[in-house]
Amino acid sequence: MTKGKQLYEGKAKIMYETGNPDELLVYYKDDATAGNGAKKGTIADKGIMNNKMTAFFFEYLEKQGIATHYVSMPSEREMVVKKLTMFPLEVVMRNVAAGSFSKRYGVEEGKVFASPTVELFLKDDALNDPMLNSYDALALGLATKEEIAEIERLGLKINDILKNFLKEKKVDLIDFKLEFGKDSSGKIILGDEISPDNCRFWDSDTHEKLDKDRFRRDLGNVEGAYKEMLRRLTGEER
Amino acid sequence: MTKGKQLYEGKAKIMYETGNPDELLVYYKDDATAGNGAKKGTIADKGIMNNKMTAFFFEYLEKQGIATHYVSMPSEREMVVKKLTMFPLEVVMRNVAAGSFSKRYGVEEGKVFASPTVELFLKDDALNDPMLNSYDALALGLATKEEIAEIERLGLKINDILKNFLKEKKVDLIDFKLEFGKDSSGKIILGDEISPDNCRFWDSDTHEKLDKDRFRRDLGNVEGAYKEMLRRLTGEER
Repeated sequence: MTKGKQLYEGKAKIMYETGNPDELLVYYKDDATAGNGAKKGTIADKGIMNNKMTAFFFEYLEKQGIATHYVSMPSEREMVVKKLTMFPLEVVMRNVAAGSFSKRYGVEEGKVFASPTVELFLKDDALNDPMLNSYDALALGLATKEEIAEIERLGLKINDILKNFLKEKKVDLIDFKLEFGKDSSGKIILGDEISPDNCRFWDSDTHEKLDKDRFRRDLGNVEGAYKEMLRRLTGEER
Repeated sequence: MTKGKQLYEGKAKIMYETGNPDELLVYYKDDATAGNGAKKGTIADKGIMNNKMTAFFFEYLEKQGIATHYVSMPSEREMVVKKLTMFPLEVVMRNVAAGSFSKRYGVEEGKVFASPTVELFLKDDALNDPMLNSYDALALGLATKEEIAEIERLGLKINDILKNFLKEKKVDLIDFKLEFGKDSSGKIILGDEISPDNCRFWDSDTHEKLDKDRFRRDLGNVEGAYKEMLRRLTGEER
């Protein structure tokens, strides 16, 4: 594992080249932002915990037949991933109304949907990540009709797998954000991360928030929530 | 035709009961608003022209097999329509980037799409008519899966019919907004209006705007644009 040239620094991760042209190295930072960068802070050891949780989820999903970009975890903050051509889309899956959905449609947080939703957003900070639908994505040339259908199908399948798995851990999967890319053969593969940074996890019994909403909304015990999620997933005490 | 109790006054139309419980009377006003009511004005004889253009479009669509709420036009500003249970949705069809689409996605006005888009918006002034997709509409209980599919199918069909018809009149159909309702049998029927108030019409050769954007953007000759559209549709000189 050679850590090569830095390619990109995002809000929570840094991407590096590796010695292998088909793979990248992801470094998980402790930095946390909210409101499209308006609020900034750090969450102690978040990078370590998110790296571990993401690796855990990706390995679990691979076992269920979902292709992910995960290759290996060479260190606590580092993940080797397959190099993909990413779609400029955020794919948001929802089972329960919360956050921006509740605000947008005037629906109380906690309302359980009869069926999950799949929402697409254009990844564009300058435009504030506007929502779009599959027709818009097609008109904008972001993906083909078949790719969009496959992305939505995978989103729904991943939601199903994770929701059921988390239920056993006494966690309700409220909503989460996915990002997909294509490998050189055109196969659509799950990228990015799955962690309390981009998922809403609520304790099934108490409805306590075990995710980044504790940071966004200044609810306190932010690190504790990440630790508790890691513990429930892997049994690991940090 | 008895004009009964006033049921509702909107930005551009007033709805009345009629002697027939299955029918309503629509009165078309000259009032014009833009920016969700932020800008207000009047366009001389707009009510008359929009009533006539809507009647024309609805009669044309009926001939092409599209069910509309149109019954008759008892006077220049009045239309009798079937009473429907309206879906709280605005259905926006687009062939070319313009207006809010261009702003939302940073796309130049005039970019022609390879395929038309269908967008759904929740009709809710207080929430500023937020965009939603078919999954959201389902989760919010606004319509069934089959109803949403039928609304999208009808929107695409109506777009096809009108785009081809207007091309002969040297008008490019850039985008437009539809509203649908259900009759007592559950059949989905086109309601509301089709006029320069809720369509973008561009002259095919000069790209001159022949619609409410002249009012929204203070381009001048607002009445002239409505008159020109009426003339091209019906041959009528006002």
